[in-house]
Amino acid sequence: MTELNELEQIAQAAADAAAPFAATEPKVRARALNAVADALEAHADELVPLAMQETGLTEVRLRGELKRTAVQLRLFGDTIVDGSYLDVRLDAADPEFALGVRPDLRRYHVPVGPVLNFAASNFPFAFSVAGGDTAAALAAGCPVILKGHSGHPELSKATAAVVAEALAEAGMPDGVFQLIAGQAAGTALLKDPRVKAGSFTGSIYAGRLLADIAAARPEPIPFFGELGSVNPVVVTAAAVAERGGAIASGYVTSVAGSAGQLCTKPGFVFVPVGHGLDDAIAEAAGSWDEHRLLNPRIAASYVERRDAVAGAQGIRTVAEGGVRIDEDGQGWALPSIYAGSLADVEKAGEAVLEESFGPLSVLVEYGPDDDVVGALLEHFGGNLTITLHLGENEADDATRELVHTATQRAGRVLFGGWPTGVAVTPAMQHGGPYPATTNDSSTSVGTAAISRFLRPVTYQDAPQALLPAPLQDANPWRVPQARSRAGESLTWGAKADE
Amino acid sequence: MTELNELEQIAQAAADAAAPFAATEPKVRARALNAVADALEAHADELVPLAMQETGLTEVRLRGELKRTAVQLRLFGDTIVDGSYLDVRLDAADPEFALGVRPDLRRYHVPVGPVLNFAASNFPFAFSVAGGDTAAALAAGCPVILKGHSGHPELSKATAAVVAEALAEAGMPDGVFQLIAGQAAGTALLKDPRVKAGSFTGSIYAGRLLADIAAARPEPIPFFGELGSVNPVVVTAAAVAERGGAIASGYVTSVAGSAGQLCTKPGFVFVPVGHGLDDAIAEAAGSWDEHRLLNPRIAASYVERRDAVAGAQGIRTVAEGGVRIDEDGQGWALPSIYAGSLADVEKAGEAVLEESFGPLSVLVEYGPDDDVVGALLEHFGGNLTITLHLGENEADDATRELVHTATQRAGRVLFGGWPTGVAVTPAMQHGGPYPATTNDSSTSVGTAAISRFLRPVTYQDAPQALLPAPLQDANPWRVPQARSRAGESLTWGAKADE
Repeated sequence: MTELNELEQIAQAAADAAAPFAATEPKVRARALNAVADALEAHADELVPLAMQETGLTEVRLRGELKRTAVQLRLFGDTIVDGSYLDVRLDAADPEFALGVRPDLRRYHVPVGPVLNFAASNFPFAFSVAGGDTAAALAAGCPVILKGHSGHPELSKATAAVVAEALAEAGMPDGVFQLIAGQAAGTALLKDPRVKAGSFTGSIYAGRLLADIAAARPEPIPFFGELGSVNPVVVTAAAVAERGGAIASGYVTSVAGSAGQLCTKPGFVFVPVGHGLDDAIAEAAGSWDEHRLLNPRIAASYVERRDAVAGAQGIRTVAEGGVRIDEDGQGWALPSIYAGSLADVEKAGEAVLEESFGPLSVLVEYGPDDDVVGALLEHFGGNLTITLHLGENEADDATRELVHTATQRAGRVLFGGWPTGVAVTPAMQHGGPYPATTNDSSTSVGTAAISRFLRPVTYQDAPQALLPAPLQDANPWRVPQARSRAGESLTWGAKADE
Repeated sequence: MTELNELEQIAQAAADAAAPFAATEPKVRARALNAVADALEAHADELVPLAMQETGLTEVRLRGELKRTAVQLRLFGDTIVDGSYLDVRLDAADPEFALGVRPDLRRYHVPVGPVLNFAASNFPFAFSVAGGDTAAALAAGCPVILKGHSGHPELSKATAAVVAEALAEAGMPDGVFQLIAGQAAGTALLKDPRVKAGSFTGSIYAGRLLADIAAARPEPIPFFGELGSVNPVVVTAAAVAERGGAIASGYVTSVAGSAGQLCTKPGFVFVPVGHGLDDAIAEAAGSWDEHRLLNPRIAASYVERRDAVAGAQGIRTVAEGGVRIDEDGQGWALPSIYAGSLADVEKAGEAVLEESFGPLSVLVEYGPDDDVVGALLEHFGGNLTITLHLGENEADDATRELVHTATQRAGRVLFGGWPTGVAVTPAMQHGGPYPATTNDSSTSVGTAAISRFLRPVTYQDAPQALLPAPLQDANPWRVPQARSRAGESLTWGAKADE
């Protein structure tokens, strides 16, 4: 645990690093991100065993995740190199401006300042110390204070040492990356005026608590929390007829992988009454080996959730799975699949509808008169993803309404496939309406995530010598500069008629 | 006042309009914005006299403001026509993706849904019914519910009728623009789950109250409040020597215009001890005529603020100005300029440092040993603007530190000139650290304001027939589509070394 009396020094070190770090040329920061990526890969043989021990995740998964984390850092480096993320806009002084003389205006984005990231339990690399939020904040030019997750404290320390050393060797200022531990330290720092933004991946309970703290500060700050998502899937009768077997096995794989401890695990799958997939699902589920849950606390919660679902009125068991608690309190789980009618699921309320963090999912059986669209709007929350399994040429009005509804209730809409496995790439959207996230204006995966840690500033009639590099006419960093020319305002409104 | 039992219907009408309005092609929405602009100008002779009567602002000012409002609507139309605001990103499916097969991913921005705008008192056109927040939300494709300001109720009704009629004639759906009145109706609607974002221009007290309501909803929503700003100006000794007289008269004009009831009025001007500008300022202030304050409530607050400043220890009067309350409770004010040492101003605390809404400003006299940078950081809040009046070639380290500090504490940094008069243009930034705004990630003036009312959505492996127009390969709206090609991920990280 970080002692509260250490926090003053940590906050001040981050604040002191903010100005010199913000002033680094994007190319230089990109090289530093590459250096962190290289260092992580170089230390894989030290870090992966630590992660296996502390999380129970498999070596294959963790080596893949470490690679993903490195690739993510390099992608963010690539993203900032050309400076387009700065969104530079230069308005020429304009004596003919439609509303009187316009001054010379130059706008771009600056880093918000120190960012406090709360790491997740379930991705000890990709959503933890050197994960996406850290990569995005560092790419933006913000010092990072990382609140490590209590589920993997030793890995957090070891990873933080690798990150901090790589950044120092790349010439980044002291205080640009610091690790803290403990909930008390995290909430105390979130209230510190030197912290300018927060990010978080975890439970609805903890995330909302922190979001409320951020909003209630004397100076509120943006807080990007990724909380809970049940990731509904809708399978049409045509899809079942075309490829029921493939859907059954893909479903079970998506639920069982990493013991279902993924934010995009499909928690509810709408299937038509009489789908006939029970046997295929049970068989697929039976082929999986026991997988350890991340930690005893998660195991205990999972047991409780599983009992609640299994015991709800009208719910039947398709694949019993099960969970065994060992002498250390660790849980070992097999995929558990339940089923019930849409009416019974809705009637059961929270007992069934709440997210179950672990390899559990519920088939929601709908009849021809059931209102699937209404159910998605009313009972299944805001989500990171909604997935539609349609027949090959299904594109009628009902289908379009389903697509529209999915767009309203999720940040990513999939057609076929399964939502687990989130590609780190420019067009990814990992966010969604509350409670999927506390702030739906951005993403926590993919290059657009950088915008969360930037704020716009405009300079008016500034002498060239006092302008930041990206706004200078000489443009020494050679960033894209969007120019609004003098005289343009006289024809505003004309484009719509062209 | 809008009765609370009418709100159900209003919220539902906005919700019903959301989908058809979101589906309109940008070019069609742009034409609708042009139609609103044309209609406002066509009704100027009806609207301007109403505004004069309800606000006490001058005809010249109000005709200019109405024109600005119309230009603003046309500019937003121009902004959306080409579709670049959608930020379309297409990632090709990629079997060689560094982390395993990448699906086809297509990301763009959709309107957030109904927006509740709280109008300001001081710009009865430009920050009111048809003002910037309305223009930005409509441009984004969001239905608007406009909470009219109690200071100009008849003008609000008349303007709303013009806007609604123009939108209907342009073929926009019913419910796309609605007016409500009364604080109770505004706060009740802000809690309605069908409202998806809020915006506000007004006092710190009311704005923070509303921001807290938005953050405390079961589903929190983004709230863009523009609250308070004292807009510090720093004048160096070199600037006084070069052009003291011009600074004095420019200063008074900026304080006195519109009776100082502007969010960017320079409230505090740091001048070097012994500046010798008292007489020039007093003379300039004496040349102004009495100007009516917006309404009796504002007049009463202004009298109170002015008394507090004038009565604070160590504060002397440079231009007495004054304020006269007539038999209707309306206030008539002349510019009042006070002065005091930095130490005395800081010692007086809130009595002097709080924003005074009206034609009052304070000269803050600093000596060679005073810490102006420290004062800006500690005592003068987050601001919409900070203005620097420098000598012609001043660009030493102290000047650079001043520029850096201004960037930390404001959204717009001016070099010479005065912060009042906010150009509506792509590079404008009208926002800033709290309490200037509750959310510093965007602007409320200029084309970037549209981003406040959009959220990103990604479609994965969607059939062309079910994709929204901007994401289709055929690209029927011909919007810019940024493509990430297959194979690219294999070289991520390389750009920094090029």
